[in-house]
Amino acid sequence: MKKKTTIYDIAKKLNITAATVSRALNGNSKISEATRKLVAETAKEMNYEQNKLAQALKSGKSYNVGVIVPRIDSNFFASIIRGIEEELYPQGYHVIICQTHDQEALETGNINSLLNAQVDGILMSVSNAKGDSDTSFNALLKKNVPLIFFDRKKEIKGISSVTIDDFKGAYEATKHLIDQGYRRIAHLSNDRSLLIFKNRYLGYRQAILDSGLEFDENLVIETHSKVLEGRKTMKKLLNFENRPDAIFSASDFTALGAIQEIKAHGLKIPEDISVVGFSNEPFTRFMELSITSVDQSPIEMGRLAAQVFLEEVNNDKRIKSEKQVVLTPELIIRKSSLKSQILDKA
Amino acid sequence: MKKKTTIYDIAKKLNITAATVSRALNGNSKISEATRKLVAETAKEMNYEQNKLAQALKSGKSYNVGVIVPRIDSNFFASIIRGIEEELYPQGYHVIICQTHDQEALETGNINSLLNAQVDGILMSVSNAKGDSDTSFNALLKKNVPLIFFDRKKEIKGISSVTIDDFKGAYEATKHLIDQGYRRIAHLSNDRSLLIFKNRYLGYRQAILDSGLEFDENLVIETHSKVLEGRKTMKKLLNFENRPDAIFSASDFTALGAIQEIKAHGLKIPEDISVVGFSNEPFTRFMELSITSVDQSPIEMGRLAAQVFLEEVNNDKRIKSEKQVVLTPELIIRKSSLKSQILDKA
Repeated sequence: MKKKTTIYDIAKKLNITAATVSRALNGNSKISEATRKLVAETAKEMNYEQNKLAQALKSGKSYNVGVIVPRIDSNFFASIIRGIEEELYPQGYHVIICQTHDQEALETGNINSLLNAQVDGILMSVSNAKGDSDTSFNALLKKNVPLIFFDRKKEIKGISSVTIDDFKGAYEATKHLIDQGYRRIAHLSNDRSLLIFKNRYLGYRQAILDSGLEFDENLVIETHSKVLEGRKTMKKLLNFENRPDAIFSASDFTALGAIQEIKAHGLKIPEDISVVGFSNEPFTRFMELSITSVDQSPIEMGRLAAQVFLEEVNNDKRIKSEKQVVLTPELIIRKSSLKSQILDKA
Repeated sequence: MKKKTTIYDIAKKLNITAATVSRALNGNSKISEATRKLVAETAKEMNYEQNKLAQALKSGKSYNVGVIVPRIDSNFFASIIRGIEEELYPQGYHVIICQTHDQEALETGNINSLLNAQVDGILMSVSNAKGDSDTSFNALLKKNVPLIFFDRKKEIKGISSVTIDDFKGAYEATKHLIDQGYRRIAHLSNDRSLLIFKNRYLGYRQAILDSGLEFDENLVIETHSKVLEGRKTMKKLLNFENRPDAIFSASDFTALGAIQEIKAHGLKIPEDISVVGFSNEPFTRFMELSITSVDQSPIEMGRLAAQVFLEEVNNDKRIKSEKQVVLTPELIIRKSSLKSQILDKA
């Protein structure tokens, strides 16, 4: 790399001391206007740039905020990031994003990268709850770099979070299926060491128990939030002797896969099998057979997470306090689960 | 913020000089093993962390690479980023992402943020070709920070790029419509100060001229890559006295909007009006009425852009050379444009 111009280079050229150059550049009143002007012009000629990083270190702020998500190519996470940006840009912050692809090593690496990039705080959705990434989180806490969880959180003392009531969302989705007359409702679950998936499972289970239906653990299958995984899992379920008549999926992507597989078997939706997803990804609305899903107001979630960050970063005393914000989900009923004809206009 | 432990703090505690602490921490052979051990233990006790940033500045590398895209919530850009990550992670780099939402002020801000974050290079798709963001690009060039354009580029001397042959993609898409018997083909265009949209327009135009059809400039409408904008534009076209019988859209999102509007008017696709998009977003495949589109092999594009970056960053002498990689697009024919029954299996 080409060496950057330093104040020493400018001092040498003008035959004055580096201290004088520094004072001139920083507008020190002891420096004459003539010298100030000469230094400024020479600095410009030599492509000198004041070290913004050094300034940032001095003020203790870089005005960069890091956001870590499992994946960026989901409307849900992209919308949360949009909410964060909408809240932080007017405050002069810039948002830089990393994705983990649900790999813990990448998560830890991302945290370190963002710390090296001198971010003022990290807002993140954790990718894995099994591993020992607590070490990274605790390192952040020790450094007093604000850390806020959104959607996928870990229970760590001192870390604020903005989440949604996943239990309630799952409960209402399952209740809706029961109200429509479905009796054998399968659940496409996901890694339940993550609270969101655990709570969606528990909400589903509770709705079944509350309705006096039999709860069959065999109808709960853990899979990954991918279309192809949804197809594979649905294939298994269709081979059951007593196959399910409805699917509550913890993910829109697996719900879409399930729908593709059901159709490939020549079965009708929702007449033969009903399907409900989770997250309200735009494609659930765009499909000709629109998919019932649970909306999580992600933009609002992002905005709230950013607000919690601003409160923490602007609290000079950094009084340790945890804030747990929980949003209420909304069931959006569409064609994939509705036997009768009353549809929302979404 | 809590003050970080410095080597001066350690020196004070051990009653030795800071220089000795520094030498001990850096494994200088002049320091006895006993002192080295004592310093290391004290540093650990006091939560001292060697300034990775300072080390990065010393080596001239942070191993962070910045990627700037117009938006993250499109499969196209997300896939390019995936390709970049796949190529750079094994080399020890981390990827941090910024989005511009097609706003030039954000683009400039993102470049500055990434520079402040000490990235080793920036890979980006420009958001706007009208403004004077050249200033930011030239600043990067002056600093010898590698800059590589992908997909949306600007013609700036010394900047390498990886793009796709948009002219060819558009030409083939339009030719396909003509071969199917469509005669009044409208084009949903986009900001043509961006090369990609200009070339898609030119390819469409050339295909029409080469087929001996009349080229009607009124059938070219500039819009934005959003579903709702596609609907609005299609509404206008449907009100034409001599309405088009086919649509070639420079974006899958506007193509989807056009399809929604055509259906809302009770018209049949592809019988009454045929629709072709661009980018091969996954939803084009998932729709019941699957959408014909032009695939741009985004993962490959990302991988190639990363390879160009690695060549530049590993070239110590930084011999100025420009590399222009151009990929060949592939037309994926689906239901939305095919009157006959031969469909691809995608």
